[in-house]
Amino acid sequence: MFKALIHITLKESILDPQGSAVKKGLESLGFSDVTDVRVGKYLEISLEASGKSEAENKVLEMCKKLLANPVIENYEYELVEG
Amino acid sequence: MFKALIHITLKESILDPQGSAVKKGLESLGFSDVTDVRVGKYLEISLEASGKSEAENKVLEMCKKLLANPVIENYEYELVEG
Repeated sequence: MFKALIHITLKESILDPQGSAVKKGLESLGFSDVTDVRVGKYLEISLEASGKSEAENKVLEMCKKLLANPVIENYEYELVEG
Repeated sequence: MFKALIHITLKESILDPQGSAVKKGLESLGFSDVTDVRVGKYLEISLEASGKSEAENKVLEMCKKLLANPVIENYEYELVEG
């Protein structure tokens, strides 16, 4: 059994309305020292695989086919066993 | 300048409809070896602070006041300089 820890974030050049909204919220609560906020997705996926490389291939495929939009998003993942 | 890398995840006992939806989507694409999916938020917050402990206090306060719902969510953060 493997667990993939996946981060999906917007590419730098892409406007982040969610991040701007969180920044405004923080400012309204008095956090005036916040200079930037970027909001992304964090997924933990448990999957069966015969070995680490098979697990890695599956995770890459999942990111490309469903989890990340390659036009506007980047993805990073880490695989842990168990 | 500091950057806080914040993970906000649902507590184990809380149902994750978003995770279930992603799991179903992956299964429909043929990823039948996925046993569980949990979806959370990942935030990168850049902030000014006089030192690491001040930055840490601010991040903790942000998580408690706005970013995480303590009833259903856990939060973890890492602080990097620069």
